[in-house]
Amino acid sequence: MQLKLEHFNIKIGQHKVLFNIADAKELGVNPGDRVRIRGHQSLSAIVDTTDDMVPPGTLGVFSEVYEHFEDWDKPVEVVPAFRSKSAGVIRKMLDKKPVVQEEIKMLVSDIVDENLSDVELSAFITASYIHGMTDDEVEWLTKAMIETGDTIEFDTHPIMDKHSIGGVPGNKISLLIVPIVAANGLLIPKTSSRAITGAGGTADLMEVLSPVEFSSQEVKEITEKVGGALVWGGATNIAPADDKLIRVEYPLSIDPYYQMLASIMAKKGAIGADNVVMDIPIGPGTKVHTIQEGQKLSRDLINLGHRLGMNVECAITYGASPIGRRVGPSLEVKEAMKVLESMEGPNSLIEKSAALAGILLEMGGAAPRDHGKELALETLRSGKALQKMKEIIEAQGGDPNIKSDDIQVGQYTADIYASTDGYVMEFDNKWLIEIARLAGAPNDKGAGVAIHKKRGEQVKKGDPILTIYAEKEFKLDNALTTAQRTNPIIVEGMLLRRIPGTYGLQ
Amino acid sequence: MQLKLEHFNIKIGQHKVLFNIADAKELGVNPGDRVRIRGHQSLSAIVDTTDDMVPPGTLGVFSEVYEHFEDWDKPVEVVPAFRSKSAGVIRKMLDKKPVVQEEIKMLVSDIVDENLSDVELSAFITASYIHGMTDDEVEWLTKAMIETGDTIEFDTHPIMDKHSIGGVPGNKISLLIVPIVAANGLLIPKTSSRAITGAGGTADLMEVLSPVEFSSQEVKEITEKVGGALVWGGATNIAPADDKLIRVEYPLSIDPYYQMLASIMAKKGAIGADNVVMDIPIGPGTKVHTIQEGQKLSRDLINLGHRLGMNVECAITYGASPIGRRVGPSLEVKEAMKVLESMEGPNSLIEKSAALAGILLEMGGAAPRDHGKELALETLRSGKALQKMKEIIEAQGGDPNIKSDDIQVGQYTADIYASTDGYVMEFDNKWLIEIARLAGAPNDKGAGVAIHKKRGEQVKKGDPILTIYAEKEFKLDNALTTAQRTNPIIVEGMLLRRIPGTYGLQ
Repeated sequence: MQLKLEHFNIKIGQHKVLFNIADAKELGVNPGDRVRIRGHQSLSAIVDTTDDMVPPGTLGVFSEVYEHFEDWDKPVEVVPAFRSKSAGVIRKMLDKKPVVQEEIKMLVSDIVDENLSDVELSAFITASYIHGMTDDEVEWLTKAMIETGDTIEFDTHPIMDKHSIGGVPGNKISLLIVPIVAANGLLIPKTSSRAITGAGGTADLMEVLSPVEFSSQEVKEITEKVGGALVWGGATNIAPADDKLIRVEYPLSIDPYYQMLASIMAKKGAIGADNVVMDIPIGPGTKVHTIQEGQKLSRDLINLGHRLGMNVECAITYGASPIGRRVGPSLEVKEAMKVLESMEGPNSLIEKSAALAGILLEMGGAAPRDHGKELALETLRSGKALQKMKEIIEAQGGDPNIKSDDIQVGQYTADIYASTDGYVMEFDNKWLIEIARLAGAPNDKGAGVAIHKKRGEQVKKGDPILTIYAEKEFKLDNALTTAQRTNPIIVEGMLLRRIPGTYGLQ
Repeated sequence: MQLKLEHFNIKIGQHKVLFNIADAKELGVNPGDRVRIRGHQSLSAIVDTTDDMVPPGTLGVFSEVYEHFEDWDKPVEVVPAFRSKSAGVIRKMLDKKPVVQEEIKMLVSDIVDENLSDVELSAFITASYIHGMTDDEVEWLTKAMIETGDTIEFDTHPIMDKHSIGGVPGNKISLLIVPIVAANGLLIPKTSSRAITGAGGTADLMEVLSPVEFSSQEVKEITEKVGGALVWGGATNIAPADDKLIRVEYPLSIDPYYQMLASIMAKKGAIGADNVVMDIPIGPGTKVHTIQEGQKLSRDLINLGHRLGMNVECAITYGASPIGRRVGPSLEVKEAMKVLESMEGPNSLIEKSAALAGILLEMGGAAPRDHGKELALETLRSGKALQKMKEIIEAQGGDPNIKSDDIQVGQYTADIYASTDGYVMEFDNKWLIEIARLAGAPNDKGAGVAIHKKRGEQVKKGDPILTIYAEKEFKLDNALTTAQRTNPIIVEGMLLRRIPGTYGLQ
């Protein structure tokens, strides 16, 4: 069928074209089918139909398809195309039928190339969430995620890396671990994420100190120059399938277990990591709720690492309270820099960072077994970690002379006070993060919360237990209202809620 | 956040708005989240983000949202909204957690109102495909599908209805059953579908004789006037959720069992059917492959009917061969009209139609038990069924004096010949339908195939076994090429395929 083209100047995340319903009937295609368009180039696209947006004889074309053509004045020949092979693979997965490596590779390629519709992507995610995946399938998925993106090959080895499973507020440990490890002569090109539902990912934090958006080639150069990097993975085109999957998982509020494994390990595989330490925080509000789940996840990560030729160690960590006492980009960076500058700072932050950095130092051969943490602490104390951090900041285009005191935080603040005498018993991490987000984090770098009293600490009625920081007054108000309503920090003996009686209400 | 509006004049099947990524970050929302827009009216929409399609300060709005506003020059206030409750229900279904009736009702309302994204819809379909549904859930789904669309309440009862599970080519029996039943004083307002993957649904067929697009009120009036109707369900707004679900099921090539039950029965429930006969064809290429599956489906339909206060009987029928000898709208209508005019026609068509009409006559009390088929045949022979069909055609705005000989079929024809002597052994229904579709059916009414030899009939080499009809020459060529390649009719002793040896190919 010959059709004129009309360009809809909109990207919709898939290769889609819009037929007048009369043309679709004539061609014998339905919404969701695929057609092949023959013009300057030949490409396949997903069919949608309309009775009024394009007239008969005209094909509406969204930007993803438009970009493939040069000459728009000429009509194009459109023919029905076979269903995509990836759709057949997804169909197999729905029925829990076995698939082979080539099929998974094709599927991931189509995901990266935006050749799948949201309907197909969502069916894939849902099916793998419900059915799970075999060890082979996870390995193939991981390899496909690596192969469909950029990879970095370093001349020197070993390459070290670290990953934290999410959910703990204030988990700024990469800002300490990377310089500690790099200061001991090991390469650690750390890519990290921005927060989606959190108050700040490592990339959001590092951005307070320097740019974080680099190509994978630049990441390689920075790492080779100073030993470490702290960059945003999203700018590198490393394992790009992950972002496409998250776009679907996020609105469903699911994080399919085996895809989580594949996503984590693909990012490590793509930079050629030899030794990886995994931080698995356990607690309410984190992704892993029990020690047993943490052990299973550890085994699975170690096993998958083995299949990919990577040495993985896992550390199950305490995740029921925030790490350190600051949540939100600038607040957290200030806290981490203070530790680098003077070892002043919360024990939870120093101990956890040193423990994990220590494991990496041992894995990389920089410290003998059981002496890694000692070396990590010494690297902090000696100022070598601070010096290395300055080199990384400078290599990434930031100001190496920045001091923790220079870092500005939100000018609008409000305190939350203890409503009773007692001891701090519980932290509601989810609400703590939500309050930081309402205050503006991670987008407003200066927004967040400072925690004055942690678990087990004694408070008196009227003591400040939390300070909210914001860059905008209305965001402070929003956060404050929620903080007062939700009590994210529970003091022993505190009335959680008062339920009024019914007398006099007749 | 105050935003100017920019209208994207495109319908995308969901309430979606497009933020510049900077605005989305500032507001703290991600793609897939929901926002509430406060303008003249207040409505919620699904968030998408862009870095170039709208500038910061401007909200891109697709037509589904646009239609809700009148004053576009004024900026609107946009605030983050809670995740839709339906998304929570879908999430529960993914985890196979129990849901309650109110939740299913809310979900179906959101589906009908286009408040769900493709990602969410697909997750719902996939989860119910994989997990199945309980009897309660199917009942609630059916009731919700009824309640979210038009319903018809007749003053007179009983109301009769009939449904065929798909997959058999040439299954034109409704064109005989409806007039037979109506001629005996029973009301039968038959809504039917257009073909999606078939060569012609009953609505496509009836359209050869009269218009088929009516509101549910008009369907009621036609039925009350002449006793029967043969209309396209898609125009009535009866159980509109079904079309929205099919839009997602189609590209996944799945037809989740319990949703099929709900879709079928919702359409019967919405017109207030008291007695329904179900035609369940068994055979390769149909939806139901074995007698056992047919029995399970029967039990489930009867059980669901019982819950809805409907009397259901099921007939498991032979589905391995086409019904009658014509496939494609005009060809099938010609064949059915011939039977009505003179009882001339294929036994498979007359017998099956009379048997199913007979069940309805018995259920409705027009014939004593075991005498329904006899009455049905007599209604055909006496010309009463033809007379009633003419009344229905006239009531729907067609020409009641049309004769089978007047019906035009495609002018371009080609024959397929037997390649050997023998008996016809097998029909490949799927390829038969595909050939009819390639010839232009169902959109080109005159396109289709005529079958000259059926199962068990003797053929001589060179006898025509199939004639292809098309309205356009290039479509005839396409269909012919495929017919010659696929051999949809297998003659005993015929070479199915010749695999050349490799000698001389070195």
